[in-house]
Amino acid sequence: MELKGNGHNARYVSVKAMIITIGFFVTATPALGEPEAYTYGKAVIAHRGAPGYLPEHTLESYAMAYGQGADYLEPDLMLTKDGVPIALHDRTLNATTNVAEVFPDRARDDDRHYAIDFTLDEIKQLAVRERVYPASGELVYPDRFPNTHEELVFRVATLAELIELVQGMNHATGRNVGIYPETKASSWHADQGYDFERKLMDVLTEYGYESASDPVIVQSFEAESLQRLRELGCELRLVQLIGGGPSADPMVTPEGLDEIAEYADGIGPSISRIIDSAGEVVDDNALITGAHARDLVVHPWTVRTDRLPDHADSTEALLERLLFDLGADGVFIDQPDAAVAFLRERAER
Amino acid sequence: MELKGNGHNARYVSVKAMIITIGFFVTATPALGEPEAYTYGKAVIAHRGAPGYLPEHTLESYAMAYGQGADYLEPDLMLTKDGVPIALHDRTLNATTNVAEVFPDRARDDDRHYAIDFTLDEIKQLAVRERVYPASGELVYPDRFPNTHEELVFRVATLAELIELVQGMNHATGRNVGIYPETKASSWHADQGYDFERKLMDVLTEYGYESASDPVIVQSFEAESLQRLRELGCELRLVQLIGGGPSADPMVTPEGLDEIAEYADGIGPSISRIIDSAGEVVDDNALITGAHARDLVVHPWTVRTDRLPDHADSTEALLERLLFDLGADGVFIDQPDAAVAFLRERAER
Repeated sequence: MELKGNGHNARYVSVKAMIITIGFFVTATPALGEPEAYTYGKAVIAHRGAPGYLPEHTLESYAMAYGQGADYLEPDLMLTKDGVPIALHDRTLNATTNVAEVFPDRARDDDRHYAIDFTLDEIKQLAVRERVYPASGELVYPDRFPNTHEELVFRVATLAELIELVQGMNHATGRNVGIYPETKASSWHADQGYDFERKLMDVLTEYGYESASDPVIVQSFEAESLQRLRELGCELRLVQLIGGGPSADPMVTPEGLDEIAEYADGIGPSISRIIDSAGEVVDDNALITGAHARDLVVHPWTVRTDRLPDHADSTEALLERLLFDLGADGVFIDQPDAAVAFLRERAER
Repeated sequence: MELKGNGHNARYVSVKAMIITIGFFVTATPALGEPEAYTYGKAVIAHRGAPGYLPEHTLESYAMAYGQGADYLEPDLMLTKDGVPIALHDRTLNATTNVAEVFPDRARDDDRHYAIDFTLDEIKQLAVRERVYPASGELVYPDRFPNTHEELVFRVATLAELIELVQGMNHATGRNVGIYPETKASSWHADQGYDFERKLMDVLTEYGYESASDPVIVQSFEAESLQRLRELGCELRLVQLIGGGPSADPMVTPEGLDEIAEYADGIGPSISRIIDSAGEVVDDNALITGAHARDLVVHPWTVRTDRLPDHADSTEALLERLLFDLGADGVFIDQPDAAVAFLRERAER
């Protein structure tokens, strides 16, 4: 097969390659289907890859998370100036890349560099670093991957690259690991003149993700984003994220859950919606029981073994409580290996 | 911290970065030391990364292998025109990259493109692909990672990048995973005018690998390469690779092992030196017992779950026989997760 490298991507030029490509999707498409629902009965969602060990949202971090046995690889998504979905949490590139050094004159009035102001080719010129506080340059998680490397360079990944990575690994392993993309700041993207949901659908459809039985779940904090996906004919499973702040309080009422159940297949609540800061179960676990009563799965976020809530004595204790005592169906976690080891050892008891 | 991206690498420009860098090595150096000798008592050596699932020698493949629990990440090494050790098995780039399309006029008379004829900056322009037969373009391992991706691009990795990756992951995980570099075609490099061993020592020393207790083992098929390392004052552990062909027969005699014991700490024999093609134990296991009598560890190669020798009923059966029935101390494997799972389950029995 012939590859032609050009900058950050490669294109096939031979007819044989096209035939093989078609052949790949023919064989790959049946492989799309409910993930191994799940390896250990609960969904281990690799939050931004394996950011506890490698910089978030990089392909290296996703490859590590896959190797650790995650059921889903989770990217937050933002759009580039040319409308390409990329794996990025912030609207700005300052905390996780060297954008200020590469493009010193491209900041907005708030001195921040917004991803939406840069083309993919420009963003591919950036070096991804472990998350820092932009003002001080200090690491947000000092015990995670250091920013001291001088040769090694991580790059911003696109959604398409992540999908090709996971589908290729699924082909090689026989597993059926899914993706769990989030439409980030959808209404803000609309204000900037972009149809985020359309861009996302285009990519997912191109790679064969079309039905509720495919290994993909789309998540958003914005109900309008998920509703927009339905308007576009999206049949994929959708998860409504629910933050811990008062603005999301209406979502956790019976009426709120009724409304969510009309367009979504699950909820992704902050852990604080299930266990409060004092360690008490919130409202007698009404959110999980209410969600399950409406056939909504519950995937709380985010477990960080290096930033456990004060009420948790250990990662295992927190996972036992969320997944088994209280019945959550999976968890977003920065260290997927910890959840996989916990579930495996529990299953082997 | 400020990073400045330039092409394929990043350099720190702020004083703070330098201080942090120094601080990192100060804290990292104690972490260099015997690997978790080994996670399950036998060395799981990730042969070229996790090539059973991701293209060999890429950083993504190494990150996956690390996530799967390997004790050592193994790169074959070749030198670039500018003398930089890179992770590459072949002397030529044709089977694992798109070099023929990017540099059509740079082949030697045999129509092959040799890594030694290209600078690192040139090699960094290449897209790595899953190994193919260059003449036909057919995949060598059709069930491994497909070459159908159109957006995803893998790059050739340098030894320095691999070291920064593994040291950073060790910092974040608290593990002490080692590297297992091979000086490939050392005498051929000498013919081309390069001192391979000096180049390797320079990189390893820069990253703090200096003593026999550090998590690094250097391997070579050429005794002269390992002896040259000793001449240069190398105190690292060395492993003499032993092929299956007649030219290596003298090495497996008592006299041959006596000689190896003078400069090396172990041997890396072809599995065929231990179990013959008929499945019979070779020479009553004299090689392993003879090596152990001389305090030489034994790390046979290469287990491929998708290319088992005819005499092996399963990967587990082959690993049980090599590691426990016959006493090998570790194994080179293309699918590290298979060895880790086998050893873990065996330890939990």
